[in-house]
Formats: sequence, structure tokens, C-alpha cells
Amino acid sequence: MKLAPHASRTRLLDAALQVVRTKGYTATTVDDICHGADVTKGSFFHHFKGKEDLALAAIEHWNAMAANLFASAPYRQLADPRDRVFGYVDFRTDILRGALFEFTCLLGTMVQETYATHPAIRDACNRGIFGHAATVAEDIAQAKVLYAPDADWRPESVASFTQAAIQGAFILAKAQDGPEIAAQCVGHLRRYLEMLLNYPAAERRTP
Amino acid sequence: MKLAPHASRTRLLDAALQVVRTKGYTATTVDDICHGADVTKGSFFHHFKGKEDLALAAIEHWNAMAANLFASAPYRQLADPRDRVFGYVDFRTDILRGALFEFTCLLGTMVQETYATHPAIRDACNRGIFGHAATVAEDIAQAKVLYAPDADWRPESVASFTQAAIQGAFILAKAQDGPEIAAQCVGHLRRYLEMLLNYPAAERRTP
Repeated sequence: MKLAPHASRTRLLDAALQVVRTKGYTATTVDDICHGADVTKGSFFHHFKGKEDLALAAIEHWNAMAANLFASAPYRQLADPRDRVFGYVDFRTDILRGALFEFTCLLGTMVQETYATHPAIRDACNRGIFGHAATVAEDIAQAKVLYAPDADWRPESVASFTQAAIQGAFILAKAQDGPEIAAQCVGHLRRYLEMLLNYPAAERRTP
Repeated sequence: MKLAPHASRTRLLDAALQVVRTKGYTATTVDDICHGADVTKGSFFHHFKGKEDLALAAIEHWNAMAANLFASAPYRQLADPRDRVFGYVDFRTDILRGALFEFTCLLGTMVQETYATHPAIRDACNRGIFGHAATVAEDIAQAKVLYAPDADWRPESVASFTQAAIQGAFILAKAQDGPEIAAQCVGHLRRYLEMLLNYPAAERRTP
């Protein structure tokens, strides 16, 4: 089957997300990606100069998908910013489903092994992780104004910590070969945020 | 220079820690390890069947070094278990120094990219991470008895979360190409533990 150029590019990017999250960036070959996308190597090199070029495009593709996923999630409609913060955390828990490669993070996986050897990939992962953190920081900042105006912590720093906790939860899930430990860890993140944002004790969840 | 067999094995293991933490498991070659250790390939294959065999030995080497590092750290001498919990967290912060490959974790780096393709490495990383977490859980459990006896959280679960937070902090440090963000994240972990263990507000540190 001959695909339209745009379709084959998207299939290559989707395949990259799956393969890289399964075995890491270095272990991923152009052949793996072509096989996963069911497109020819000629098509690959029509769209991308090589594996690193594909990886940078895959990061943009991932960021766009993630932005859409979170922007369209039901919790975004909640009026109270604190409810949106917990809605975010619970949504992160809800999507800890399926195979490990399906719910773990492309950026965390890639930056782990490439930070010293592929600065362009590291920078793209950095922009993706902290761009996402900035959207979380907005809700945390608004919630702080309402519920913890005098607290001495910075919303941006707390938002960075949410991403550290989630990235680390993925590592523990990989070590244990299943999502249960990650859900426990995100539960602790929720409890920390409940304490920072003075969430009513009666409504708290316990990990 | 001809090294004693034991010395060349240790040099190969030490080199593996450095090279794998710099560029990941898959990108590491036997040649890299031999070059880093300044030993011959013949010596490598005298000691190890191949790269995965070396990796499994490097994980044991890492675990033994880490166990010694934490067991001999000054905070272990503190009489109060809660002080040991915070001593641990502060020690983790203190060792966020030098180059990224020097302070980040061999196990977190390796399991990230090998979990699906190298089950023996995944299992060894799992044992290492949760073996270390168990030592932290002991102090948390003793501190809970004294300072939060009625709290509904489990010490083992909190100890797992400490490891998630630290592993995730390393990922953020790699993305930002420096340790500062990791120290911020460990500061949030400290604050969470302060709240769980009812640490006196006047003595708390803020991230």
C-alpha cells in the first residue's frame, strides 16, 4: 500500500514513540521504526535525515499529543484551580494502564541515556518536560492564591517536583514490571499537594 | 602494566559505572569499558562472558558501594530514627555534586532502557532499588512509631516514594544539565517527610 507522504510521516513518528519507549533511544534502529510503521526505508529518509532528526520530530509529536491530551481532559473544566491540580494528579493515575511502554514517558526515557551524548535531544526533552510543568504550575499558582497565600514554597518548584515524582514513579514501575508501584507513588504526590494546598482532611485520599 | 586479575576486574566494574551512567547501557560497548578501565579485551573476556554479564556484576558492585556509602555516613550514628530519616535526605542532597554521571544512579539509568529487553538486568535493578528502599523504610517505620503512630500511611510505601522522587530528580537534572533542580526536588521530598513525621515547624527547611 502506498501511503500519502503526510500519513507515512505520522506513522513513522507514532512508531518511534512505541519503539523508543520499549527499548530506549540507542537500541532503536531506523529498521525498527520502518518495520513498526510499515513503511519503506526510502520513505523514512524522504522525511528524516536520520535517527536523531526523527527523534527530535518525535519529541515535538509527543509534546503536541500530550498538550492535547491534558487540555481536553475533563478535569480542565473544573472551576476551582485546586480541583484542577488534584484532577491533574488523578488523571495521571488513571492513565497508568496497559503495557509499560504505553504509559511511560518518551522524554524521561530519552533524556536518561542521551543527556551527555545528544545535546539537541536533551534540550528538546528539557523544553517538553518543563513546558508541561509550566501548565501545572499555572493551576498550582492560582490554587496557592486561594488556599495557601502565605506559604513559602514556589508554584514553579512544586510543579517541577510533580514531574520528578511522576518520572521516578515510571522508573519504579519498570523495575517492578507493572504500574501498581507508580500509582502508589503518585498517591504520595497527591498527599503532599493536599498538605501544601490545605485540602480538607475529610476529602483526602491516602496512598 | 599487567594488573592482578582481581584489580583488572574491579577496574572494569568501575569503568562500567562511569560509562553506563554517561551514555546508557545500550550505547556502552565492551571497547568503551576496556578503554575506560585501561585493560585488554582479553582480560575483559577472562572476567565476563559479555556485556550483560558485566552489567549484572556492575549492579552488584554498585549495590555494595552504595550500601557501604550509606552505612558509613555520619547520619547513621544519630540516635533518633526521625533524625536519621532527615539525615538520609540531606545526605542525598549533599551528594548531588560534580558531573551528572557522577551523582546519578546506575540502576535507574539501566532499568529505564532495558526493562523490556533484558529481564535479568531489570530484576537486578529492581532488587537494588528496593533493597536500598528497605533500609530507608526501617528508619521511617521506627520514626513513625515515635512521631506518627496513628497515621494511615505505610513506611514501605513512603520509602518507595523517596526513591521515586530521587530517581525523578536525576531525570530533571539531566534535562537541565545540572544538579540544582534535583536539589530542589529533594527539598520537596524533605518537606513531605517533615509533614508525615510531624517535624517541628521551627526546624523545617524549605525548598
